[in-house]
Amino acid sequence: MTAYWCARAVLPSGVADGVLVTVEDGRITAVSSGAAQPPGAVRLDGLVLPGLANCHSHAFHRALRGRTQTERGTFWTWREQMYAVASVLTPDSYYRLARAVYGEMLLTGITVVGEFHYLHHAPGGRRYDDPNAMGEALIAAARDAGLRIALLDTCYVAGGIDQPLNEVQQRFSDGDAAGWASRVGRLRGSDGVVIGAAAHSVRGVPADQLGAVAGLLPEAPLHVHLSEQVAENQACVAAYGRTPTQVLDEAGFLSARTSAVHATHLTPVDVGLLGSSATYSCFCPTTERDLADGIGPSVALRAAGSTVTLGSDSHAVVDLFEEMRAVELDERLASQERGHWSAPELLAAATADGHRSLGFADAGKIEVGARADLVAVRTDSVRTAGTGASVETAVFAASGADVTDVVVDGVHRVAQGNHSTFDVAAELAAAIAEVT
Amino acid sequence: MTAYWCARAVLPSGVADGVLVTVEDGRITAVSSGAAQPPGAVRLDGLVLPGLANCHSHAFHRALRGRTQTERGTFWTWREQMYAVASVLTPDSYYRLARAVYGEMLLTGITVVGEFHYLHHAPGGRRYDDPNAMGEALIAAARDAGLRIALLDTCYVAGGIDQPLNEVQQRFSDGDAAGWASRVGRLRGSDGVVIGAAAHSVRGVPADQLGAVAGLLPEAPLHVHLSEQVAENQACVAAYGRTPTQVLDEAGFLSARTSAVHATHLTPVDVGLLGSSATYSCFCPTTERDLADGIGPSVALRAAGSTVTLGSDSHAVVDLFEEMRAVELDERLASQERGHWSAPELLAAATADGHRSLGFADAGKIEVGARADLVAVRTDSVRTAGTGASVETAVFAASGADVTDVVVDGVHRVAQGNHSTFDVAAELAAAIAEVT
Repeated sequence: MTAYWCARAVLPSGVADGVLVTVEDGRITAVSSGAAQPPGAVRLDGLVLPGLANCHSHAFHRALRGRTQTERGTFWTWREQMYAVASVLTPDSYYRLARAVYGEMLLTGITVVGEFHYLHHAPGGRRYDDPNAMGEALIAAARDAGLRIALLDTCYVAGGIDQPLNEVQQRFSDGDAAGWASRVGRLRGSDGVVIGAAAHSVRGVPADQLGAVAGLLPEAPLHVHLSEQVAENQACVAAYGRTPTQVLDEAGFLSARTSAVHATHLTPVDVGLLGSSATYSCFCPTTERDLADGIGPSVALRAAGSTVTLGSDSHAVVDLFEEMRAVELDERLASQERGHWSAPELLAAATADGHRSLGFADAGKIEVGARADLVAVRTDSVRTAGTGASVETAVFAASGADVTDVVVDGVHRVAQGNHSTFDVAAELAAAIAEVT
Repeated sequence: MTAYWCARAVLPSGVADGVLVTVEDGRITAVSSGAAQPPGAVRLDGLVLPGLANCHSHAFHRALRGRTQTERGTFWTWREQMYAVASVLTPDSYYRLARAVYGEMLLTGITVVGEFHYLHHAPGGRRYDDPNAMGEALIAAARDAGLRIALLDTCYVAGGIDQPLNEVQQRFSDGDAAGWASRVGRLRGSDGVVIGAAAHSVRGVPADQLGAVAGLLPEAPLHVHLSEQVAENQACVAAYGRTPTQVLDEAGFLSARTSAVHATHLTPVDVGLLGSSATYSCFCPTTERDLADGIGPSVALRAAGSTVTLGSDSHAVVDLFEEMRAVELDERLASQERGHWSAPELLAAATADGHRSLGFADAGKIEVGARADLVAVRTDSVRTAGTGASVETAVFAASGADVTDVVVDGVHRVAQGNHSTFDVAAELAAAIAEVT
């Protein structure tokens, strides 16, 4: 048994002082507030939050940070630079890169990552001896970095609607959804590892194969990129006479276990379909800024019944605090009004809602029975001083740089801002130098 | 003579390694690159930038960070909360608060602040024994925090177009522009202190008094809030039959020494007037997100001839790195295209252009003759590792938390991320507790 004493913590009932959290076998067994620090308890200062869920990650994109800002262009020219990195990764180099990137996530309070994984095969589409070598490398990277993973194994079998795969995209393809299912069927989850399914998008999977992707793992998380760019919508309507959301709906892809990533350019009908199916909408605001995607209708989606979750996606920034506030701030830019999302709502998106969308319904809250994740955020930095040490402090003032301690499944992985087992920044630099 | 050896620095000619900067009497007397670190030189690691210029500040708004995010509302309801803080400040408490806020700025690499100052008088409009007690408190706060200041003494004599001042606004008013000029005439600049003029807005100064504000200090910086909110435009057109920009133009307010702050909701004619007059456009993107202002036409303004500068304004965030990239990222959201502003252009906005707009044309570049400002940014943090240690690293990857060292006018004010003379976060907490 371990005990953590939090000077202040965000509980389901609100902010409380002197919170004693008792942990056995990685689970919270007792929570009390108004407690003095008992002998033997590990002290966590600042404001302690539940673990953060990063619901959409392409780990290798971290190698592009700062390197894709030198030229003018579009989402599509950015994608060429992204493919250049994708073309050189191996299971070994991707393991090293992903471990470092997941270490960066952990340092900012992220306790689970949803890895949207489509870089399955060797150059030219050649199969590795273990055809899941890349996915297994990502699972190992998360385990060794110290956080949980939902490996969202992604079907990507077309280069666009009625378009062949290009050279790099050969690495992504299992030929068709049946080939993808055959490979994915060999993956096994474990405690802290969820195997989920994904279709890359209506660009990457023909409409008549979407149902096979949705049906493979009927209890597991199911993810898909949706309407990130206007051009995708136009191509879809031209080919199918329907929006991407409508195509997904007709394929039986939308459900309460589905996450629609981005959900940026939607019609009112699309919003209604996502809401009535209780599909999650995974917003990635810093990436959506970086890639010039636009501002998605978060308020309309919420009103329709879709729960918003968050992801750092391309890792132009890895900071769920910035993602939380960006949902509200970008909606303010779009609407010229304030106060669409409260801080508690945004924190729920980043914690319990995100965890649930990744198949970890037992995480994201500091309560008895939950996985013992604790994230301590400084309330005495220049960013947070004087802001009230409230949920608003966490959502609107703090940054990833304010995280001092992270406990994942009861294990104290980050203390004093440092990872317990490796030098994350040094490993980021080394791993990126290998592939750029 | 002092010498600083920079592992890497951004010079006017580009990024260079092994840069030796020699300083006498606060000025740079020599710059060489490709140099080994000589004995006796102070070493600055990472990437060294020129000093950053924060061109628009309301120091007391820092007390609101995290405290105005609990309710729905508009810019105008936010203003009520802001006025509540304004109503209790005294010269002493404002000195303490501003010194801490300027300390926070310094820690993030800001070497000059443009303080848009309108909280002139005691409650009810009563004059202090020294009618410039508040302005002098701000000058002292900047000096004691260790950065330069342009005190932009602001005329604010109406509660809106044809509207009386409310209770709190009584503290802002000198009665009319002549009364304002009489008081401002007593202020004196010094090395590191520029006295500039400002009109609050076309709301705060009747059109027929704008010329008097513009004329008082004909060589000094001249600032004004411009078209931050649509409602301001509507009221102006209703009263004057002209946009705020047109009203300023007719009053002779626009010029190469003028900064139009926000410049958000502009007509093409407005953009042309700002450009042809070479008026600066001071963007405050994180505040413009926070206050639901909208996204200003930065690219159109640049094309028309207006130079963009940056400010942290309400200090919801104090981080010029975030402001730099936000100009580009928010334009991407508005246009759905990437690559409007290059990293060197954004760094110029935050350094030389900003300094010039505040009356410090001799600062913001690492070159012989300039004020000796040096800002060292970590290139080995989790945010910046692997990003190339380039200008793009500074603009698109770094944050204020990555600043380790700041030299202002040759004095090494920040080292290892700490202020040389006081605990900034502790003083922020104490000063804010006094006034909230």
